[in-house]
Amino acid sequence: MVTVDEMAAFCKRKGFVFPSAEIHENLAGFYDYGPLGIEMKRNIKNLWWRSVVQNKENVVGIDGAIISPESVWKASGHVESFVDIVGYCKKCKKKIKLDKHEIGIAKCPNCGILYENNGEFNPMFETTVGAVKEESKKVYLRPETAQMIFVNFKNILDTSRVKLPFGIAQIGKAFRNEISPRNFLFRMREFEQMELEFFVHPQKLNDCPNFDEVKNVKINVLTADQQENNDQETTQMTINDLFSNKLIRTKWHAYWIGLRYKWFLDIGINPDKLRLREHTKDELSHYSMETWDIEYNYPFGWKELEGIANRTDFDLKQHIKYSKKDLYYFDTETNEKIIPYVVAEPSVGVDRIFLTLLFDSYTEEEVNGEKRIVLKLHPLIAPYKVAVFPLVKKDGLDKKAKEVFDILKKEFNCFYDESGSIGRRYRRMDEIGTKSTVTIDYQTLEDDSVTLRDRDSMKQIRVDIKDLIITIRKFLNGKKLENLGKIIKKE
Amino acid sequence: MVTVDEMAAFCKRKGFVFPSAEIHENLAGFYDYGPLGIEMKRNIKNLWWRSVVQNKENVVGIDGAIISPESVWKASGHVESFVDIVGYCKKCKKKIKLDKHEIGIAKCPNCGILYENNGEFNPMFETTVGAVKEESKKVYLRPETAQMIFVNFKNILDTSRVKLPFGIAQIGKAFRNEISPRNFLFRMREFEQMELEFFVHPQKLNDCPNFDEVKNVKINVLTADQQENNDQETTQMTINDLFSNKLIRTKWHAYWIGLRYKWFLDIGINPDKLRLREHTKDELSHYSMETWDIEYNYPFGWKELEGIANRTDFDLKQHIKYSKKDLYYFDTETNEKIIPYVVAEPSVGVDRIFLTLLFDSYTEEEVNGEKRIVLKLHPLIAPYKVAVFPLVKKDGLDKKAKEVFDILKKEFNCFYDESGSIGRRYRRMDEIGTKSTVTIDYQTLEDDSVTLRDRDSMKQIRVDIKDLIITIRKFLNGKKLENLGKIIKKE
Repeated sequence: MVTVDEMAAFCKRKGFVFPSAEIHENLAGFYDYGPLGIEMKRNIKNLWWRSVVQNKENVVGIDGAIISPESVWKASGHVESFVDIVGYCKKCKKKIKLDKHEIGIAKCPNCGILYENNGEFNPMFETTVGAVKEESKKVYLRPETAQMIFVNFKNILDTSRVKLPFGIAQIGKAFRNEISPRNFLFRMREFEQMELEFFVHPQKLNDCPNFDEVKNVKINVLTADQQENNDQETTQMTINDLFSNKLIRTKWHAYWIGLRYKWFLDIGINPDKLRLREHTKDELSHYSMETWDIEYNYPFGWKELEGIANRTDFDLKQHIKYSKKDLYYFDTETNEKIIPYVVAEPSVGVDRIFLTLLFDSYTEEEVNGEKRIVLKLHPLIAPYKVAVFPLVKKDGLDKKAKEVFDILKKEFNCFYDESGSIGRRYRRMDEIGTKSTVTIDYQTLEDDSVTLRDRDSMKQIRVDIKDLIITIRKFLNGKKLENLGKIIKKE
Repeated sequence: MVTVDEMAAFCKRKGFVFPSAEIHENLAGFYDYGPLGIEMKRNIKNLWWRSVVQNKENVVGIDGAIISPESVWKASGHVESFVDIVGYCKKCKKKIKLDKHEIGIAKCPNCGILYENNGEFNPMFETTVGAVKEESKKVYLRPETAQMIFVNFKNILDTSRVKLPFGIAQIGKAFRNEISPRNFLFRMREFEQMELEFFVHPQKLNDCPNFDEVKNVKINVLTADQQENNDQETTQMTINDLFSNKLIRTKWHAYWIGLRYKWFLDIGINPDKLRLREHTKDELSHYSMETWDIEYNYPFGWKELEGIANRTDFDLKQHIKYSKKDLYYFDTETNEKIIPYVVAEPSVGVDRIFLTLLFDSYTEEEVNGEKRIVLKLHPLIAPYKVAVFPLVKKDGLDKKAKEVFDILKKEFNCFYDESGSIGRRYRRMDEIGTKSTVTIDYQTLEDDSVTLRDRDSMKQIRVDIKDLIITIRKFLNGKKLENLGKIIKKE
């Protein structure tokens, strides 16, 4: 696997991601997505939204403001409890973020000397709203999107006809003034989250009619108990095992863990590089009763890809207490006012999924004595679905290729390229994950057929232009090239 | 037309938009989008991206960071030249933003007394990056997305194989600490922009092969000359007239103005409420040589919906000067280094389009003696495409309706509702703009057919479930209901 620095260089070279504003001065932890990066990021966000919101009858979305008043973050507990601990090496003059359990025991990675605890630090970015100083208010850039969901809970109850159990989801930027941003897109200061808060009646945490959808999903599990016994060996179990053996304590929580784990498998991530790890007691957030992380095996070790916490009724109770507003759910069956439980909060960074997919799909192969780089991305994730090439840029092939491009681009996000040898153009598409390439050659001018090439097998078939859209659609949906036509060539 | 306050109340009542964080304290100029609002906003952004980026061979996208170092905004001229003028009424103790030409002549709308100029004010939000004070850096939340495009210009040249003329586009949040945010979503402190910078060879500003696409678009025009003569009467002309008569000075600029104006017509905006107004000399921004605004006739008057400026080479030159980096385009035909012209920068707020579409589509009618509210939104813009209802919630109709819902939701963003009378459920869908409603009744259990109802005409036809997806698709694409089946009923 390539290192994180090699991946950052690859992303810059191909136009996926650039260090932000680097012609002036780059600030650590900020990145700009380039032409390929933004298309891939859009695909990730759209797939998530479709899976978590639009395909679920009982989930609605919101899009809250990034700037919010201090009162929101007092209620949420962030002003008081959201603190990072700064460690400091006197010798190297180096600062680093410490975990709670590292206080007093962490040693500098450079010189091995014991770190000093250099105090606590709240990583929320602060600014002021209001044009004149005497009227200005202290506000924060949100460090998580979740609170915008809780503060709108009552608005959504009042307007959306939702009934328990139901979810509220959001995609949007969040900001944390990290002490030591690192590992490229893994820990950024400005990042994008996708979060769902799933609300359940507190007496019906196991009343999950959808459970069958996920019960057989196979998962590599590492429990908190294991970790306390220094056992790092994962065990494969189904979601059903996890719930039946009381490892995950509630059925709705198990349901969402299964669904999210399955989503990563569905977008093509290698199952051997995924595991589900339970938080140990001392790493639980201030709001969580039980958290499970879906982790990926990065070049820098197993790390959180997505966290799925049981936030209980902590947040709604806090907002009721601080706002003095009536944020109850009225149960029309029992005529009771209740505070629902957020039994599952799947929370994931878009940038982190993006980085994970790049690591997971990046492949180097040898073809005819030369190195070939291929991003074996799921076709739904790849920036472009189809590339269109004229074999050569003359004899009317380029004109014909443009015509085919114009037909295809109405249906798929397409890329057109006519410069350089055909072999080099194929390699460029392999490198950015374009699954299918259409080439217009001299035969096209005779019989209106083109070649269709598969990124992974490098095989080609011949397809009539009139059947091209339907053939590509089948191919991108998973049908093998050999089942769509006779293989005529392979690099 | 409803007032802006009535529209804000409507948006809150139906779940489109809520004042941000209002259970704690709402800050003026910040809003949260609710379940319907986010779906509609997503539709607007996706249509724009498809039209401006994915359907254009020579436009690529980026997604830059919101936080950027002071050096970016020094180079862009924003630190020095992006200033608002604060007016102040001593009697009412009220502050308001003044336009340049209002200095010394504006009177308080409340008491009529002359405003004092209370100084200049830079509306950029400022914060600091870095965990420890001594190492922290002053940064700004971007007041426009455009600069992230200019600072990445060289990166994109180096990685994307773009050739002049080409465009770089971006959608994202921007922030301005407005003195007096007002008119609901019209002037917000946190808002979302969609911007394109279109780069052209400085000697080829009129070399526009695509011009025919737009030359016949009909436009209501108000020129700078007219305004200087106090003439507010618009004249209808084509884009071709505008360019031929040298009102718009360059052909590429005229092309993008035409394309964007047409886009608003295509998404259903009333042509009589749109006009194109040229900026007078004293209102041009510090970077612009020529700007045209597409304006809409709001309840609070004609105001900018989208601005399309000719930014010349101002920005690239500034960034070259401040960064000392080589941001030239190398022309392989002439072997020259050149600085391209941004001959057109279509720049529009997502929130402003959103508000415009609501005003434009909101209709009150009388049906059978009762008031009916209908949002006559373009089907591609409406939050939901289809609603599915069982006629009554018994006798297996609800079970059957759920089955139909499950089929349709894979294809369209669907809404399911089984509570209340069928008439009230239709009205609720009319109010949120859902173009088609499918009702499962007793006949469905016999012959597997359902009714399909049109929001606007309130007519209904009968459709076999097996033909439902294709029929709805044709209907949403503009086919009339009577051409898809026999009208069996009308409210």
